[in-house]
Amino acid sequence: MNKHKPTMKVGFIGVGHMGTGMAERLLAAGHDVIVYNRTSSKAQSLIDRGAQLAPQVADACREDAVITMLANDEAVEAIVFGEDGVLSSLGKSTIHISMSTISVALSDRLTSAHANASQRFIAAPVFGRPDVASAGKLYIVAGGAPDVLKTCMPLFEAMGQKTVHIGDAPRAANLVKLSGNFLLASVIEALGEAMALIRKAGIDPHRYYDLLTSTLFTGPVFTNYGGLVARQEYKPALFAAPLGEKDIRLTLTAAETLRVPMPLASLVHDRLQTLIARGGEELDWSAIGQLAAEDAGLRDQAA
Amino acid sequence: MNKHKPTMKVGFIGVGHMGTGMAERLLAAGHDVIVYNRTSSKAQSLIDRGAQLAPQVADACREDAVITMLANDEAVEAIVFGEDGVLSSLGKSTIHISMSTISVALSDRLTSAHANASQRFIAAPVFGRPDVASAGKLYIVAGGAPDVLKTCMPLFEAMGQKTVHIGDAPRAANLVKLSGNFLLASVIEALGEAMALIRKAGIDPHRYYDLLTSTLFTGPVFTNYGGLVARQEYKPALFAAPLGEKDIRLTLTAAETLRVPMPLASLVHDRLQTLIARGGEELDWSAIGQLAAEDAGLRDQAA
Amino acid sequence: MNKHKPTMKVGFIGVGHMGTGMAERLLAAGHDVIVYNRTSSKAQSLIDRGAQLAPQVADACREDAVITMLANDEAVEAIVFGEDGVLSSLGKSTIHISMSTISVALSDRLTSAHANASQRFIAAPVFGRPDVASAGKLYIVAGGAPDVLKTCMPLFEAMGQKTVHIGDAPRAANLVKLSGNFLLASVIEALGEAMALIRKAGIDPHRYYDLLTSTLFTGPVFTNYGGLVARQEYKPALFAAPLGEKDIRLTLTAAETLRVPMPLASLVHDRLQTLIARGGEELDWSAIGQLAAEDAGLRDQAA
Amino acid sequence: MNKHKPTMKVGFIGVGHMGTGMAERLLAAGHDVIVYNRTSSKAQSLIDRGAQLAPQVADACREDAVITMLANDEAVEAIVFGEDGVLSSLGKSTIHISMSTISVALSDRLTSAHANASQRFIAAPVFGRPDVASAGKLYIVAGGAPDVLKTCMPLFEAMGQKTVHIGDAPRAANLVKLSGNFLLASVIEALGEAMALIRKAGIDPHRYYDLLTSTLFTGPVFTNYGGLVARQEYKPALFAAPLGEKDIRLTLTAAETLRVPMPLASLVHDRLQTLIARGGEELDWSAIGQLAAEDAGLRDQAA
Repeated sequence: MNKHKPTMKVGFIGVGHMGTGMAERLLAAGHDVIVYNRTSSKAQSLIDRGAQLAPQVADACREDAVITMLANDEAVEAIVFGEDGVLSSLGKSTIHISMSTISVALSDRLTSAHANASQRFIAAPVFGRPDVASAGKLYIVAGGAPDVLKTCMPLFEAMGQKTVHIGDAPRAANLVKLSGNFLLASVIEALGEAMALIRKAGIDPHRYYDLLTSTLFTGPVFTNYGGLVARQEYKPALFAAPLGEKDIRLTLTAAETLRVPMPLASLVHDRLQTLIARGGEELDWSAIGQLAAEDAGLRDQAA
Repeated sequence: MNKHKPTMKVGFIGVGHMGTGMAERLLAAGHDVIVYNRTSSKAQSLIDRGAQLAPQVADACREDAVITMLANDEAVEAIVFGEDGVLSSLGKSTIHISMSTISVALSDRLTSAHANASQRFIAAPVFGRPDVASAGKLYIVAGGAPDVLKTCMPLFEAMGQKTVHIGDAPRAANLVKLSGNFLLASVIEALGEAMALIRKAGIDPHRYYDLLTSTLFTGPVFTNYGGLVARQEYKPALFAAPLGEKDIRLTLTAAETLRVPMPLASLVHDRLQTLIARGGEELDWSAIGQLAAEDAGLRDQAA
Repeated sequence: MNKHKPTMKVGFIGVGHMGTGMAERLLAAGHDVIVYNRTSSKAQSLIDRGAQLAPQVADACREDAVITMLANDEAVEAIVFGEDGVLSSLGKSTIHISMSTISVALSDRLTSAHANASQRFIAAPVFGRPDVASAGKLYIVAGGAPDVLKTCMPLFEAMGQKTVHIGDAPRAANLVKLSGNFLLASVIEALGEAMALIRKAGIDPHRYYDLLTSTLFTGPVFTNYGGLVARQEYKPALFAAPLGEKDIRLTLTAAETLRVPMPLASLVHDRLQTLIARGGEELDWSAIGQLAAEDAGLRDQAA
Repeated sequence: MNKHKPTMKVGFIGVGHMGTGMAERLLAAGHDVIVYNRTSSKAQSLIDRGAQLAPQVADACREDAVITMLANDEAVEAIVFGEDGVLSSLGKSTIHISMSTISVALSDRLTSAHANASQRFIAAPVFGRPDVASAGKLYIVAGGAPDVLKTCMPLFEAMGQKTVHIGDAPRAANLVKLSGNFLLASVIEALGEAMALIRKAGIDPHRYYDLLTSTLFTGPVFTNYGGLVARQEYKPALFAAPLGEKDIRLTLTAAETLRVPMPLASLVHDRLQTLIARGGEELDWSAIGQLAAEDAGLRDQAA
């Protein structure tokens, strides 16, 4: 426990792969964590580390802040707007921090509902996979009032290596998060096509990967995803194809509302659909990097 | 002049923006350079720095090596296969180093022709714009016999920060070079769509750029092209749209020969065609990053 | 009035451009029509021709059948599921005939809700523009129980030139209708690209149109849309771009639920988005046929 | 033999599936036909019907006209520009009628070469498959001088049901022919996606086909290709996938030269590449209509 930094009391709703790692970091930083999960057994490892169990949603909503980290819009809607949910339970001084990757439309709805109830709300979705969450190295994109963000910083500092304030509207953070996943999917598609091309020409993909990442294509995006595509290593899924498909769909939905044609987003969405329809539901979303090879008649099996 | 490294005598054919910078680095490293250019006045600055002028192509083809660095297939074909060209003039011990970005088909034709004439040939296209060439910081992708590559290394070390041997077939280097430009164009397209999306949502693109490049999207590809798209800074062209269009076309032609469908390559090729047809012939190829914004009805003028 | 055919009493909800023409045909065939429209003044021309005005939704729901012909999902949801809506007002023997172009999901919801209320429901969307509706020449695609369809046939015969029963599930009719609009949009896009190509080559588009439609490309789809694109005649809108965009979006949403990647549907959806974003909100949806020409730098103004 | 129509003497070079049917119609109409084929045995059935054999290309080039009907650019280049080819053998009064589907660039080259040699040349590519050729029901698109076209009309009337003069430039006819194949491929793709959608929803594709073609989607294009896709009947190939791929590539090449972005042409080209790469080299090109189903995970085998 770090005695020099201020500690907070925080509810945490949703302890899947991502949430568990994030809550661990909060505990490790000395914050008090009250965990709620629909399936409470999933909270056990956190309780073993010192977290308290919240029997009801409301029990997690009465401290300095409550973090929601759930799989999709439907889960957030149920937890927030459902009977005895976050909206009706939130303490006057408690901040709702929505860290889930959700639609811009739902972010707007949350913003309005909390404002109408004179409650404080901030959106703070994250970049990073479960291993990054466990290491406290997430990138956090925050949208909301600056003073609310400031109050939450001790929590963000425990979970992330960097927090960026993109604007006063929570929706901005959610849109930026979606756009980031679109950028990642685009790079995976590009790498998939490039590797199909060079593989069919008889060039070793590992040598190609080394060449790319030791010259112009440095940085974690090319390094991580290039490696997965070069090694055709698509399981276990760190971020499963249906989750990726959902995020690109939410990007396209936001783009449609804003009237922004995004042909590359359409292309990667079609790829994710194809991946799932052809049987890749349990693969990592980076397995779209295999589709160009398959369409080129390269018959290797994915790992 | 570096007295400890071996110096070579080398012909240099084609001193445009890229070639001039490269030849300068050769001179600076102490190599003897004999320059040929169709328009010989363009060679003057190099002659001022100590290069010799080759009145004819043949005069550049009799030393340790001759480098060709020309704009496109047509120029290379004219210089190599034309009357009194490189092929008929090359000394028995002279190595032809083709550093131009050319088609895989032409690379194959050069390989065959030189082999039939018992001449040594290596393909060594480069990644980097003119400023990178002037700084001697190119990345060089070499395809050819290892011993030939080894002989050429003092030249490559003068021009580049790194040289990677991708295989014994010259064509492999050319294909990899083309695939790299395809990857770059894909990232530009992705950034263009993402920035159109966030701009139409009212988010500041510079703030978005800072967020991207300070979190997950590090490395020169995102930093350089993200900056150009965020600032809508498309002139002067460091790599003009028609050159980019040509490279993606050559990628698609290679893909077609190999039967590799590349939908994203098709998309960026369509974008480059659109850019040129709408009047952007003199813009940098990264101006395709502006098309999504235009299609979204965002009416800003490019810089 | 046709004395030999059975006549029915039918409620009609939604008398926009399409609905008015359809209700006119019902009146002309001797059926009794009770019209409800949110803006009741729009029903005046029908009342002048012998229709009755339904002051409330419920007043249109107590006869042999009630037809809903509304602009989109939201309008149908409001009219059916709203307070004192169709669902709560429908007579035990009254059939709800949904002729609007709506989502498959809403069709399913209507099917369930009516089944739960032991009410009869059939989906019967139509192909045809307002002029075709006025002429009683619509094509009707029906999904539902055969006996219910049979009961409704006198109505369909008044409004359409042909009725096809695609299956017992209402959703099948809605999906087929959406797929039909996708086919039309695809042909428009193809014609737009082909005409951009030949126009930029200096070939007269009218001559080209005559050639196409007098040889292989006969039938109303090529004749109608080819003519619009050749003449660049995009207003007044018979079917406005936002309606087309909505239908292709619903097609893509159905495709996503079914996990069917449809890259061409994605392409025409992007085109419709572009058309609207560039200022074409009030143009006919066939104006996507102009985008390829614009992207090719052809500067003609649309009619 | 029709005694009332003027008969001509005509050389015929290239008697594959298409050429044989066309030459048969010429014979049936009473024209004198002198056949040349690289593999002369393929001409036997025509000789049995009264044609003469031309031992050399030149022997087919001395009558009223010579028709070339060959598989691709390479074959035409070899026959026309090769030693003792059409160009060097053509009689002063003999018209060269190029009926092959070739590139616009080659059409231009033929036009120039014949003009330079003061020879008469016309391009007259055709729409129709081999069965249509045998029936004399082709559609012929002619580009060239009106008087030359007029002279050739008795031949065209024997082979086709309609001849359209698109312009004085031969290239116009070739471009229009290519654009027509692009339109067909686009319709096939659209039908493929629509049928994948409805099939995955459990709707019978034959019923769907009947619905489409008995309502709005009439005409031979929808009837023929819709039937093939509904029945998944892709062999024997009436027009093999590699030929289709070649034509769309030539369309894209012409589009590139003219700077016309054609995203749908790119899409169908990618589809044809995929079809061939996945093993469909010997299938009819309409088998691209199967790819959407495969990408949707529908596992039916093609016929």
